[in-house]
Amino acid sequence: MENGGESGRKEEKNNVKWKFQGNQGLKSSAVSVRGVFNVLMQSINKERDAVHLCRVDPTDNPFFRADPVAAHALSTAVNSGNFNGYPPTAGLPQARRAIAEYLSSDLPNKLSAEDIFVTVGATQAIDIILPVIANPGANILLPRPGYPLYEFRAAFCGLEVRHFDLLPNSAWEVDIDSLEALADDNTVAMVLISPSNPCGNVFTYQHLKRVAETARKLGICVISDEVYGHIAYGSNPFVPMGVFSSIVPVITIGSLSKRWIVPGWRFGWIATCDPNGIFQKTGIAASIKRYVEITTDPPTVIQAAIPEILERTNNEFYSKNLDITRETANIFYEKLKEIPSLTCPHKPEGAMAVMVLINLSQIEGIIDDVDFCVKLAKEESVLILPGVTVGLKNWLRISFAVERSALEEGLSRLKAFCVRHATMSQQISA
Amino acid sequence: MENGGESGRKEEKNNVKWKFQGNQGLKSSAVSVRGVFNVLMQSINKERDAVHLCRVDPTDNPFFRADPVAAHALSTAVNSGNFNGYPPTAGLPQARRAIAEYLSSDLPNKLSAEDIFVTVGATQAIDIILPVIANPGANILLPRPGYPLYEFRAAFCGLEVRHFDLLPNSAWEVDIDSLEALADDNTVAMVLISPSNPCGNVFTYQHLKRVAETARKLGICVISDEVYGHIAYGSNPFVPMGVFSSIVPVITIGSLSKRWIVPGWRFGWIATCDPNGIFQKTGIAASIKRYVEITTDPPTVIQAAIPEILERTNNEFYSKNLDITRETANIFYEKLKEIPSLTCPHKPEGAMAVMVLINLSQIEGIIDDVDFCVKLAKEESVLILPGVTVGLKNWLRISFAVERSALEEGLSRLKAFCVRHATMSQQISA
Repeated sequence: MENGGESGRKEEKNNVKWKFQGNQGLKSSAVSVRGVFNVLMQSINKERDAVHLCRVDPTDNPFFRADPVAAHALSTAVNSGNFNGYPPTAGLPQARRAIAEYLSSDLPNKLSAEDIFVTVGATQAIDIILPVIANPGANILLPRPGYPLYEFRAAFCGLEVRHFDLLPNSAWEVDIDSLEALADDNTVAMVLISPSNPCGNVFTYQHLKRVAETARKLGICVISDEVYGHIAYGSNPFVPMGVFSSIVPVITIGSLSKRWIVPGWRFGWIATCDPNGIFQKTGIAASIKRYVEITTDPPTVIQAAIPEILERTNNEFYSKNLDITRETANIFYEKLKEIPSLTCPHKPEGAMAVMVLINLSQIEGIIDDVDFCVKLAKEESVLILPGVTVGLKNWLRISFAVERSALEEGLSRLKAFCVRHATMSQQISA
Repeated sequence: MENGGESGRKEEKNNVKWKFQGNQGLKSSAVSVRGVFNVLMQSINKERDAVHLCRVDPTDNPFFRADPVAAHALSTAVNSGNFNGYPPTAGLPQARRAIAEYLSSDLPNKLSAEDIFVTVGATQAIDIILPVIANPGANILLPRPGYPLYEFRAAFCGLEVRHFDLLPNSAWEVDIDSLEALADDNTVAMVLISPSNPCGNVFTYQHLKRVAETARKLGICVISDEVYGHIAYGSNPFVPMGVFSSIVPVITIGSLSKRWIVPGWRFGWIATCDPNGIFQKTGIAASIKRYVEITTDPPTVIQAAIPEILERTNNEFYSKNLDITRETANIFYEKLKEIPSLTCPHKPEGAMAVMVLINLSQIEGIIDDVDFCVKLAKEESVLILPGVTVGLKNWLRISFAVERSALEEGLSRLKAFCVRHATMSQQISA
C-alpha cells in the first residue's frame, strides 16, 4: 500500500488535487537499524523458530533480568500518585542530582545536577544534541562503523556528516590521521561510541586521551556515547571520556537501557562535562536548555524512580550481567572461528555486538551483506544486521545479547548457511 | 552564565579556538510556554505563596486525581517484568488496537491498529508530523492564537508558517476567509486545536464540517490536535475532526494527559483518519512509519498499560472531572467580570484555558502583556502566560486547571493588581 508519494499530486475522484506528500528526505534515508529489522522480520522462514542476533535488546536473553530494585522504584513512584504532573523541562532535580553523582564517581571533575538533562532514551539525547550544534555550514565527524541514528538526525538538521574510520586490525581504534584530515574550519564536533557499538572493543585510557588531545587541537567538542558505559568484560577497563574534560569539553550520552536491562523504559541523559565552562561561553549550554523546553520528556514517574535505581542497584547485579556477557562473547568468538567465509578481527570485550567480515569471494550466490542477511533470514530464520546499516558494506553486525543456547543455535545455522553457500574451491579445501 | 554564544569563536587560554557554538536558530525562538514559565518562576515574589494560572497541568488541582485504574495498569505492567524490552517502532500492537477502538467509538469510519502511532505525549506527535509533511517550499496554516510548539517545530524543519485568525467575537471560530486567502500551491496542511487551547471554545459540528470542506477545496490535510478531546462542558458536544475524514484526510493528535490527568506519563498518539487512502497514495503514511523508526518511543511499560486504562476507566471518572472543570470555568468567568481592564470575550466551555484581553488604555505603567505578567508575578505571585506566547499580543492566557480556592485567590490578586494599576480616569469612574 505504500507507493511512496509519486502520485502525491495526482487527481482523486471529484477532482481534488491533494498538495501534501510524505517528506522526500525521509524516503531517501532508507536504511535504519529498526527499519531493516522490520524488513528482515518479514523475510524470515516462519516454519522455524527465529534466532535474533540483530537487535541489541538485552531483555532478549532471559538470563538478563532487571534488578527488582528498578521495578520497585518505578511502581512506588506510580502508586504514590505524586509524579503524574509535567516534569521540569530539564528533568526532576532529584533525578538530575542522582545521575550527576553516579557519573561523578568515575570523574576527576565532579558534575552538578545542572550538568544533567534527562532524555527519552539515548535516542532523544541524539535528537537533542545534533540540532543544538547544527549551525548553517557546520559538519560533524562520525565513526565508521557507527550508529545510524546520528546520520539520520544530522541529515534532518542540516549538519554535514564526515566519517572517520575505526581500524579493525588495530582493535577498532580511531584512525587519528583520517580524523584530522577530515576536519576543517566548519567542523564542530566528533562522536565516539565507547565502549564501542558495533565493534565490541573498549578504548584504552591512552587512546581516549589521544582522541581528546586531537579534538582540542581541532577546536571541536567530543560527543561520547556511553550507552554501554561499564559494559567492559575484557582486559581494558571502561574509561569515561569525561575523564579528559579538562582537555576538551565532552557531552556524554548515557542510558538505563543496557546496564540496567530496561531498554523499554526509554530513559537516558545528556551530561555536559566541562570544568572550563566552554559550553557556557559558546552558548551550547543555553541551547540545550532551550531545546529541552520545546521537546518531549521522559515520564515523570520514571524520572522519580532514578535516584533509587542508581543508588540501590548493587554490584552483584552488574557483575553477574558482565559475567553472562563475557561468557556469550567467548562462545561467540570461539564458534565463529569454525565458520567458513566469516572473520571476526577483534574478540569482543565490551558492549553487546561485534563486526564480522564476509569474505564474499568464498561464497557463491550472495551479492552483498544485505543479500546475505535476507537469504539467511529466509533459509535459516536467523536475523543478523547487514554491515551497511552501520556504515560497513559486506560486513555483518552480530548482537550476542541473547542466551547461550540461542547464540549456539544461531551460530550453528549461520555455519550451515555459510557451508552451503561456500564456493566449490572452499568446499574442497574444507 | 548563559551569554548566548557571542564568544563562540573567542580564544581560550592556551590558544584553543573552539569552533562549536549553540544553534543560532534556537536563540531566536525565544518565547516558549515552558521557557516563559521558567522566566516567570524567577520573577515571583517568594515571600508569598505563588498561584499558578499558567501551565495547563491538571494535576495542579488536587481535586483532579488520576483514576486508580491507571496506576494499577501501569504498576502491573512494571511488576510483570514483561515490558522492559524495546517496543515495536509504531507501538505495541495491543496499545495501538486499544487506541483505535477508543477513537472509533466516535467515528463513522472505523480506525484499525495500523492507523495508530504511539508517541511520547502529544509533543512528540507534533515533533513527528511536521517533519513528515515538510518538503522544501511547503507551508502550513496555524491558528492564531495557538500552541507555540507548532511554530518551533515548523521552524526547525523548514516549514513556512502562515497564521489564520480565530475570531474572539464569533466564539473563536476559524476565520474561513482569511484561511482561504492564506493558502497557495505550496500549502500542505492546517492545524486546528479542538476543543480549543488556548481559547476554551468547542467548535460546532457545522463549523468543523465547513473547515473540512474548505481544506478539501484547498487540497490540504487537517491536523486536528485533540489533546483536549471530550473536555467539553458547555452546550456544544465535542466532535472529533475524524468525523469528516471522508471529506478531507485527517491526522488526529491525542494524549492521555488531560482526560486521564496524567500529563507526566507523556503518552500520546497520532491517528490517521483516512477512509479514502489518500495518506497512502501521497506517501504520508510511509513517511510516518519511517520517521517513527528513527526517533524515540513512549516506554513499553506505559504502552502496555494503555488497553486497561482505555477500556476500564469508567464514565463517572470522566464526568466528575468535567463537573469540576465546568465549575472552575464558571467561577473564572463570573469573577473575571469584576476585574477592571480585562475582558473575556467568550465563556469557556472546553479545554482548560481561556484568552483574556488587556485593555491597556485603562492601565498605567504597563507596557504590554509580558510586562503585565512579569509585574503580576513580582507584585502578586500570580503566574499567568502572556498572550504573545500563543500569538496574541496584549492578551493573557489563563489556565483554570487549578482548584477553586487557588483560582479565587489568584483572581482576587489579579483584581487587586488591575485596580492598583488602573489609570486615574478608571479609578474615578470606579
